[in-house]
Parts: sequence; C-alpha cells; structure tokens
Amino acid sequence: MAGYSANKKDLQDRLRRIEGQVRGLQRMVEEDKYCIDILTQVAAVTKALHAVSLGLVEEHIGHCVVGAASEPDAALRAEAIDFKVKEATDAIGRLLR
Amino acid sequence: MAGYSANKKDLQDRLRRIEGQVRGLQRMVEEDKYCIDILTQVAAVTKALHAVSLGLVEEHIGHCVVGAASEPDAALRAEAIDFKVKEATDAIGRLLR
Amino acid sequence: MAGYSANKKDLQDRLRRIEGQVRGLQRMVEEDKYCIDILTQVAAVTKALHAVSLGLVEEHIGHCVVGAASEPDAALRAEAIDFKVKEATDAIGRLLR
Amino acid sequence: MAGYSANKKDLQDRLRRIEGQVRGLQRMVEEDKYCIDILTQVAAVTKALHAVSLGLVEEHIGHCVVGAASEPDAALRAEAIDFKVKEATDAIGRLLR
Repeated sequence: MAGYSANKKDLQDRLRRIEGQVRGLQRMVEEDKYCIDILTQVAAVTKALHAVSLGLVEEHIGHCVVGAASEPDAALRAEAIDFKVKEATDAIGRLLR
Repeated sequence: MAGYSANKKDLQDRLRRIEGQVRGLQRMVEEDKYCIDILTQVAAVTKALHAVSLGLVEEHIGHCVVGAASEPDAALRAEAIDFKVKEATDAIGRLLR
Repeated sequence: MAGYSANKKDLQDRLRRIEGQVRGLQRMVEEDKYCIDILTQVAAVTKALHAVSLGLVEEHIGHCVVGAASEPDAALRAEAIDFKVKEATDAIGRLLR
Repeated sequence: MAGYSANKKDLQDRLRRIEGQVRGLQRMVEEDKYCIDILTQVAAVTKALHAVSLGLVEEHIGHCVVGAASEPDAALRAEAIDFKVKEATDAIGRLLR
C-alpha cells in the first residue's frame, strides 16, 4: 500500500488541477500573451507541484519511515529505518535541486 | 509581439511534454506506485518547468529589455529600461521562491 | 540531545566553510569583481546551505521521528509521530520556498 | 566597473549580515539547539542569499545587458547582447538549481 493511499483522491484532484494549469499555459502561448504573465503562471504551477511534493514527503515519513520503525526485529528495524530515511532524504534533495 | 515568438513551437512542445508528464503522474497514483518514485517524477516535472522559465527569461531579456534600450528618446528609454528590468527581476524572484 | 549530535563536528566544519565563502563574497565585491562571477559564487553558497539542510533533515527524520515511533504508549506515540512528521514537513516546506 | 557599483555599500551590508547569520548557526549547533530551529534559520539564510542574487541579477541586466544594447556598431551590438543575455540566463539557471 502506498503511503498516500488515504489521500489518493485529494492527490489526484491536485494533479488534475496542475494539468489544467499546464494546458492554460499552452493557451497563453497560443494567444501570444506577454512573457512576464506566462512566467508568473509557470511560477504558480511550480508552487502547486511543490505542495504536491510536500504532501507526498509528509505521507512517506508518516507511513513508510514510521512503518520501518515498528519492525519488531531490532537488527532488521535499524536497517529498514536507515534505508527509508536515506530514500526520503534523497528524494527531498532532488526537490531542492 | 511576445519575446518568445521565434521559439513558440518549441515552447508549445515543451509544455505539451510537461502536460504528458503530469498525466503520467496521475497514472502512477492510480496504480498506487511507490511514493518515492512519484516524488522523483514530480522533481523531473519541476525541472522541466524551470527549463521553460529560463527560456522565457532569456527571451524576455533579449527582446523586451533590449527593445527598451533601443528607444531613441533618452528620458523615455531610461524609464522603459527600469520598468522592464524591474519586471524581469520580479518574475525571477517569483521563480526562486 | 539534538538529532545531529553524532555529526556535530562535521556540521560545524561545513558552517565554518560557508562562513568563509560568505567572507570570500565580500572580498569579491570589495575588489569589484564581475557580477556574474559573484552570482556563481552565491549559487555555490546556496548549494552548500542546501547540503547542510539535507543533513539536518536526514538526522531529524532518523532520530526525532523514529524516536517518536518508539514511544511505548500507543496513543502518545501516534500523537508524537504526527507532531514530529508535521514539524519536519513544515521545515522542508520552508526550504522549498 | 561592476554593475553593482552604485549599491556596493548596501551589498556589503547584506553580506556581512549573512556572515553574522552563519556564525549564529554555529552558535546554535554549539549549544545543541533543536534541529528544526536550526533548519528554520538555514532557510532564512538561503532566503537572504536569494535576495542578494536578485539584486545582482537586476543590476547585471540593467547595466551589463543594457550597456551591450547601446554599443553603436550593429554587428558588435547583436553579438554583445547575445553574450550578456546568455551569461545572465546561465547565472539565473544556476540559482534555480
């Protein structure tokens, strides 16, 4: 089960709204809108994607990392935690770049 | 005429590819893909949007700012440059946030 | 105990290096270096700060979130996890902005 | 002459304040402050660096790009503009990454 299962509908709604924003950008280019207005709209889409990322990070930490921390075998637990934390940090690093 | 007119087709192609990536994200969520894989893909879309922004910034500076700099009347020119430079910097600031 | 205790020396070394980079920037401005070269150096400092952030996030998740997950009382545990995960996500959100 | 000459004092003041913030971070780590509070402070330094970058970008566009646009020889002018615009865009790209 994915960490975001409980909020799957909300996540899909956000992604559909972002898809609509990207189509809106295409319309703006089609109609030769002013470059600064397009840039402002691109910044809004980037911000909406950041919000999606943050939601996913929150659910990943709350479900996958915490899930690893409840593994009963101590040695497996330490390994599972290290793996999940590393994975989360790498993903956050890709967002920061 | 918009600053990006010469590259309008290229810009539309990039935006259509981004729209496809966002639809791909919806499919990943639909199929309960692992949250880290979705995050990696969200980071890729953000990066693609940054590339679009940079292209627009380049064309804005090269056309709109430089256009203002070629206004023959000195007083109007100084004012037009200030306006266009401020506008470009504000747009870049929104991208950095 | 802070989540970063085990790597405190490494963290201090990085921060001292960043302090040196910022002083280097002041020297560049003092010597009227070209703005683009200064911008390149500012981008390097920002990158170094991102690396520091990521290290802190990794240790926060690995210690503070995982610590909350090992609280024996189930009700307290759920609450502690929620609190720590929310705190981490808010901090990551401030980095993305 | 650098594009930021007119605001050199302001730029140095900002950089000195950033240096102070980085030293403040070292004190926080020395005193084992909570990782989230350090992260919040790192985000503030990153934001201050972004403000410095934006100031430099604004002055670069306003002075160096506009300077190139006032080159009287048309062939040299086109080349100088292309060079300066490319340089500015590359620098902004490094900030976005």
